[in-house]
Amino acid sequence: MNKNAMILTPSQARQVRREFETPTYVYSQAVLEQSAQEVLAFPHVFGLTVRYAMKALPNAAVLQLFQNQGLHIDASSGYEVERAIQAGIDSTKIQLTAQELPHNLERIISKGVRFNACSLHQLEEVGKIAPGSEISVRINPGKGSGANGKVNVGGSTSSFGIWYELIPKVKEIAQTYDLRITRLHTHIGSGTDPKVWQEVALTSLDIVHQFPQVTTLNLGGGFKVARVPEEKATDLQECGRPIQRALIDFYHRKGRRLHLEIEPGTYLVANAGVVVCSINDIVSTDAYAFLKVDSGMTEVTRPALYAAQHSITIVSGNPHTDLESRTEKEYVVVGHCCESGDLWTPTPGDAEQIQTRRLPEAEIGDILILGGAGAYCSAMSTKNYNSFPEAAEVLITNNGSLKLIRERQKLEEVTQGEIRILF
Amino acid sequence: MNKNAMILTPSQARQVRREFETPTYVYSQAVLEQSAQEVLAFPHVFGLTVRYAMKALPNAAVLQLFQNQGLHIDASSGYEVERAIQAGIDSTKIQLTAQELPHNLERIISKGVRFNACSLHQLEEVGKIAPGSEISVRINPGKGSGANGKVNVGGSTSSFGIWYELIPKVKEIAQTYDLRITRLHTHIGSGTDPKVWQEVALTSLDIVHQFPQVTTLNLGGGFKVARVPEEKATDLQECGRPIQRALIDFYHRKGRRLHLEIEPGTYLVANAGVVVCSINDIVSTDAYAFLKVDSGMTEVTRPALYAAQHSITIVSGNPHTDLESRTEKEYVVVGHCCESGDLWTPTPGDAEQIQTRRLPEAEIGDILILGGAGAYCSAMSTKNYNSFPEAAEVLITNNGSLKLIRERQKLEEVTQGEIRILF
Repeated sequence: MNKNAMILTPSQARQVRREFETPTYVYSQAVLEQSAQEVLAFPHVFGLTVRYAMKALPNAAVLQLFQNQGLHIDASSGYEVERAIQAGIDSTKIQLTAQELPHNLERIISKGVRFNACSLHQLEEVGKIAPGSEISVRINPGKGSGANGKVNVGGSTSSFGIWYELIPKVKEIAQTYDLRITRLHTHIGSGTDPKVWQEVALTSLDIVHQFPQVTTLNLGGGFKVARVPEEKATDLQECGRPIQRALIDFYHRKGRRLHLEIEPGTYLVANAGVVVCSINDIVSTDAYAFLKVDSGMTEVTRPALYAAQHSITIVSGNPHTDLESRTEKEYVVVGHCCESGDLWTPTPGDAEQIQTRRLPEAEIGDILILGGAGAYCSAMSTKNYNSFPEAAEVLITNNGSLKLIRERQKLEEVTQGEIRILF
Repeated sequence: MNKNAMILTPSQARQVRREFETPTYVYSQAVLEQSAQEVLAFPHVFGLTVRYAMKALPNAAVLQLFQNQGLHIDASSGYEVERAIQAGIDSTKIQLTAQELPHNLERIISKGVRFNACSLHQLEEVGKIAPGSEISVRINPGKGSGANGKVNVGGSTSSFGIWYELIPKVKEIAQTYDLRITRLHTHIGSGTDPKVWQEVALTSLDIVHQFPQVTTLNLGGGFKVARVPEEKATDLQECGRPIQRALIDFYHRKGRRLHLEIEPGTYLVANAGVVVCSINDIVSTDAYAFLKVDSGMTEVTRPALYAAQHSITIVSGNPHTDLESRTEKEYVVVGHCCESGDLWTPTPGDAEQIQTRRLPEAEIGDILILGGAGAYCSAMSTKNYNSFPEAAEVLITNNGSLKLIRERQKLEEVTQGEIRILF
């Protein structure tokens, strides 16, 4: 059994199915808390705030758990802000960084939510609503983490943040509305390379230098994890040290002590979650054997969306059957949707090319555990496709008990907004 | 304005926004009915049943409308069957073709729903529940429409249906449970080429020949449409004629009159729907200008999923502004999610490569209409990502009135299944 699936034992996996049916997302309180402590140990000098990018997994129980650990919140829409507040998050610990100017801007600002202006238009709208206030701006520093022309979080091809050459306009708007820019945000999704993080830090500090009132630098997230052994995880200490050195150096050169903020999402939750599902059919062609599960892109769309790799573990459906005695076999794992792209074992880099996995010979009725399913799975899936209701979510608490944190959706809830008309 | 967006006038688009806000899906009764009549005119000899593949757009009003036009239903899950029955569809007009053995198999069979066994296991389970009954089987004829190794609806790399070399096992199970195989299903997603449809028909008839009790041949769907002028649409008459000839020839050679079934989804709804959304921001880098809309992958995931191309039309937000006087400009159109892949203008064939569109110079507050958004959009999107509620759905009826057929979701509905716990 691989590390990712180790958040639950085979007998717990069977217990999940018995008590909550399948498919069910299962998250580990222990792994979530351990990840929270890891990110809170990120190298810094003059203070650190870690904001959980809640879009990765916005369940209220997870938000509560992270608040208990001392994390703040990075929200991506006005709706996420409301959701976090409803989950019991202190509104002053939430910062909103959004592509879309929120419908509830005035209300959330009045509640003390921090706003990070991501465009000149957003900055101007905040100026109109709350002149004289303190604000953060997101600047696109002109560098990204991807290749030229590719969709990207930073650089020429990215729509995130205000293009760095427009800083004079930022200052003009700030002056018009008497806004004090005290926080600077430069998330570009930097990945695992400490050298890239160092460059980002230095570039960001050059921008801070142009904003004399800035006291907080927010570098965003983008700390990748390894979901399968072939992938490289971010070493937070290694990536943080050059940033720490840059902050110390900036203090020595400019006399300014900068509070550091980071906004991990994936790093905090990806390997804390799995999907427990059932193998409901096994079919073969002349070339491949397929395991069909009662889950798929409805719960985990990442493989179809960008050929993401997730660990796969088989657990015998029968507690008295020894899995180790089974021989191994090559399988393609497919989901339950009538969609040829509903595939959990794509070739890395090509979502439309199938690849086999070597797994113990499976039987209909066995359990399949898909690992690395904490981030962008229940939060970002083609839910309700083929009218499958949303899966349940369960937390394994530190004492080993299984707590339901989201009920399985009912079909009536899938269709509740529909209005029949007479033709 | 292009053809796809012509389902509503600029003034209707503004009316949609005024009455229902944005983003909103809008479907045209006239186009839906016209498409239904086109598929019902598909060439045949001894009878034709057209089943609407409801997974493309399962809204109850659309199902009702198609039933009124004389269409039957192709359901892809036990849940879809329930949903169709709830929408008022006659259960004997529904056929279930599913990757997953439905949880409600016994109940739906007892209601007269037709079942299409897609694996040996499914066939055996039906045998146990309803021995002596009449049934359909789905056979994978060993041919697909894609390239080798690619995810596919038919052929070696496809998990859909029973591999044709296993037909002796099919007969064995049928005999054991006294099942009468009267219908054969061979959907492989054949696309626009009449020659491919001819091959499929001939291969399918070879398989029919092995099942003497079969009286209905179901060729499934896969009739592509053109969403942008560069794409080629299926000519139903052209694709149907070789199938018709093959059926006539089969009758002459074997004396068997075969009823024909087809199962279009995309063809019926793709160009009958649009998304009406608002341009809420316009930003620039040194290389690109971006239109940011209050929609995106939350409503239409297809561009992110497989670089799908959709038409884009700008409508002035102000009824007194003449759009024609504006100069044109190159834009990248991005969605409202904090996700670099939330892009509506990818390069064809590469969802991660941005491409510009030539559009009238837009202003914040203008309306953007995304065309070709009837199929696999509200039905298959990463809904609730960034906690955005599901969009409303509206039908333009034949008298031009706008009828709400799905209410905009409320945030409380997004989180209604969540259970707060005490840590």
